Amino acid sequence: MNKSRTILDISMSVDGFIAGPNRSLDRRLGEGELDRWTRQVESFRVAHAHTGAAVFGRRMFSGGEGAWQDDPNSDGWWGDDPPFRYPVFVVTHHVRVPVSRGATTFTFVTDGIESALEQAQAAAGERDVAVGGGASIARQFLNAGLVDELRLHVLPVLLGSGLRLFENHLAEAPRTLERIRTVSSPGGVIHVNYRVAG
Amino acid sequence: MNKSRTILDISMSVDGFIAGPNRSLDRRLGEGELDRWTRQVESFRVAHAHTGAAVFGRRMFSGGEGAWQDDPNSDGWWGDDPPFRYPVFVVTHHVRVPVSRGATTFTFVTDGIESALEQAQAAAGERDVAVGGGASIARQFLNAGLVDELRLHVLPVLLGSGLRLFENHLAEAPRTLERIRTVSSPGGVIHVNYRVAG
Repeated sequence: MNKSRTILDISMSVDGFIAGPNRSLDRRLGEGELDRWTRQVESFRVAHAHTGAAVFGRRMFSGGEGAWQDDPNSDGWWGDDPPFRYPVFVVTHHVRVPVSRGATTFTFVTDGIESALEQAQAAAGERDVAVGGGASIARQFLNAGLVDELRLHVLPVLLGSGLRLFENHLAEAPRTLERIRTVSSPGGVIHVNYRVAG
Repeated sequence: MNKSRTILDISMSVDGFIAGPNRSLDRRLGEGELDRWTRQVESFRVAHAHTGAAVFGRRMFSGGEGAWQDDPNSDGWWGDDPPFRYPVFVVTHHVRVPVSRGATTFTFVTDGIESALEQAQAAAGERDVAVGGGASIARQFLNAGLVDELRLHVLPVLLGSGLRLFENHLAEAPRTLERIRTVSSPGGVIHVNYRVAG
């Protein structure tokens, strides 16, 4: 039986930002038109991933800054038919019953990333657990040494400012990565997979 | 006649650092063993570049922090036979006569990056001008809109801290890049070239 892997799968600009400045509910990725590559990255993910469950940060569910605080029962910004179609575990401080939308159920976890990961692994079985972001959850997983594989979709843009993926993400010594695949899409995105050494 | 291009050609870690923490003259790239890939990147450059002259920051000539201040006549850290073999223009605040080492002459420019670029272009003719770093010069060139092509050598390591390439580098709006080549070396480095849009 294959062991489920924990995969940090995230898009970032060439200069390392996962969202541009001035994010809002209407413009979740901020300025800089990062969303112009969203469809390309999503179809690449569907074709290449082997995902059985995901862990999200709260904002990945509810959208922009502060939205949750304004409405703790927010339906999120994924609409009636989210593209995931596997269980999603949302790390949050707010207790809430699960939300089902289309073929996706969002379960809210209030006792931290390890608990969310355990629940996601139980749901995923042999399939992989995707850490979908945002940046805060991604860094927590990296810092805790919980990421087996890093899948970066590098978008061909310099944003100049915004929300960084890699910021204060490693308290420990440097870690060597093993590059296991690079795919360059015609649209200019580079999809690169690294195995994170123990 | 082809126009000379200005090329920012630089190595960085997956998390965006061009040098690790605790840099010194003996360990110019700091902790994190970035130098383990230096030879691979250098041979890739030699095989793929069309360089006629280069612009360096002061530390790219003199080595680690403060070395120049300690000895304004420092020979730098490139030894008797620097690998460049084309004219190198060093941006600095300190007036100094040129230094020749092997087949490389270092000329010191005290009136800014535009002047250094003009002199390098005159020396390069139809060949390209390489902006070799460090980070400060690289950012100045990016911010001034003087870079035609960005050549990143992405080293397979997460450093966690150090000196960032892309930090406060764009006062202006986001810039779209055109990916013109991606080469994945067996050693794990990804060499990627982007054309920087107007």
